[in-house]
Amino acid sequence: MLEPESIIRLEDDRVVLLDQRRLPDEEVELACGSAAEVAGAIRALAVRGAPAIGIAAAYGYALAAAVGDDLDAAAEVLAAARPTAVNLEWALREVRAAGDPATRARELHAEEVERCRRMSEHAAALVGEGSRALTHCNAGALATGGVGTALGALREAWARGLLRHVFVDETRPLLQGARLTAWELDSEDIPHTVIADSAAGALLAAGDVDCVFVGADRIAANGDTANKVGTYPLAVLAARHDVPFHVVAPSSSVDLSIGSGADIPIEERDPGEVSSRFDAWNPAFDVTPAELISAIVTEHGVHRAPYADALGAAVPA
Amino acid sequence: MLEPESIIRLEDDRVVLLDQRRLPDEEVELACGSAAEVAGAIRALAVRGAPAIGIAAAYGYALAAAVGDDLDAAAEVLAAARPTAVNLEWALREVRAAGDPATRARELHAEEVERCRRMSEHAAALVGEGSRALTHCNAGALATGGVGTALGALREAWARGLLRHVFVDETRPLLQGARLTAWELDSEDIPHTVIADSAAGALLAAGDVDCVFVGADRIAANGDTANKVGTYPLAVLAARHDVPFHVVAPSSSVDLSIGSGADIPIEERDPGEVSSRFDAWNPAFDVTPAELISAIVTEHGVHRAPYADALGAAVPA
Repeated sequence: MLEPESIIRLEDDRVVLLDQRRLPDEEVELACGSAAEVAGAIRALAVRGAPAIGIAAAYGYALAAAVGDDLDAAAEVLAAARPTAVNLEWALREVRAAGDPATRARELHAEEVERCRRMSEHAAALVGEGSRALTHCNAGALATGGVGTALGALREAWARGLLRHVFVDETRPLLQGARLTAWELDSEDIPHTVIADSAAGALLAAGDVDCVFVGADRIAANGDTANKVGTYPLAVLAARHDVPFHVVAPSSSVDLSIGSGADIPIEERDPGEVSSRFDAWNPAFDVTPAELISAIVTEHGVHRAPYADALGAAVPA
Repeated sequence: MLEPESIIRLEDDRVVLLDQRRLPDEEVELACGSAAEVAGAIRALAVRGAPAIGIAAAYGYALAAAVGDDLDAAAEVLAAARPTAVNLEWALREVRAAGDPATRARELHAEEVERCRRMSEHAAALVGEGSRALTHCNAGALATGGVGTALGALREAWARGLLRHVFVDETRPLLQGARLTAWELDSEDIPHTVIADSAAGALLAAGDVDCVFVGADRIAANGDTANKVGTYPLAVLAARHDVPFHVVAPSSSVDLSIGSGADIPIEERDPGEVSSRFDAWNPAFDVTPAELISAIVTEHGVHRAPYADALGAAVPA
């Protein structure tokens, strides 16, 4: 397992993170000397994954405090880095309210590690013996700074001897599945197979998938879930083939201020990530309606529909 | 429009084809001096698309006849080039039964061009005014040697002033949509946008697609259709959003000898096309059940469910 501080850490005058753009070919650290540089690293996806960008933002703010930069400007540039993951706003609120931002940021990271551990244990109970799981994007250590959300659940299921195989959507356009999730699974010798995103239909139709586990970037009060683009098609296919579809995310990804997925802001990224030559459309996320989600797992437990009640009870407003 | 002979043609001692692996960056011809070289070009996807590989195989066989090579060996190597498209078997049967293979092969090509023209006219009638269409892979001139099947329909709808926009699935792993379909549309100034395959869900959910048009590599007697992997997820999504899902293919793609999609052989290609580093699974096609298909259009007209009756009546057994 990757140590939390090898993924991201705060040093005296910089935030250091494992540059996820270079994986799996190279393990290279990127040092950010200011909040603006941390925001740039978030925008460029050197660090990505809703929980991890929350931690990065918290460390970025703490760095600004440590070196005496303008704190309002630091918060503003960090908050604007990416729009969909609500964890970023949440983490910034936490460090801004703290007397000692550096200590609070490190606490948030430690809490996220602990939340990952707990939600992984809750979620692993949803994995039947001998299961073959399918996952999308990277909801692992790299995305969280802990053991991961969806991938943490699969790690725990593997440790318990329940998991047989993990199928990994490559996750176009930036291949977080093929590059990051496969790399994490490979490093722990968990059997895995990468597929083109569009091959998930054939795989499910063949009966080769027992459960789907994904993370989340923002969960609305009704359970509608924004996650990496391609999650929604997977949920529709899983429903058609009666395969359970589970979302695993910390309570910091739940946004009770938003009633439904229709109100979640969806980031559109550079079309050049899809095509360098022709016009392209590149939404980074899509919204999976709550009706397609078998369970939402947070550090507080396994939540079932109706999600408005379950999430409202579990998550502090 | 690409001329049929610029896509593929038979010369005295070679078969010349536009190398589709090099598009859109370079327009380079590939000359094949033997049936085995034509088979190699088909396997390597220098020429692809069910109708086009049928023509390529016919020309390859005619070349073997012209230069005095062993005809049984030529037929065998060509038939084995790719397993899913039934057009290949069909075209080989036609040239083997002919007294003059070269003349028959050129006739087959001319017939395919005419079939494309006719099915495009039938299919264009399914496009409502101001429609935004979504297509997958390349079912255009490059795939057929004519105006195309699904893309032929969209060309005709554009010429009639019915089409507003074409969304193009990039079609991983080999990007036939992003490379070939976008290139064809761009060359005719038909407005188009490339998307990651997994973004089709968000696009359909947003209500931005009025119809889906795809080609076919083999259609079973009951209407189940094998086409480029990713077609089935698209059909499931289209059904969920009440968007018509149309298959356009020549009758040479219909295989009445096969009862259902379960019996269509599905080619698995080199996993290295998906991941050069980790284990991967790379089916080239998937099967869309007939129940998800709004219409199957051949040169004979628009066929509706129950397809067993409609296809049986339209296609000579």
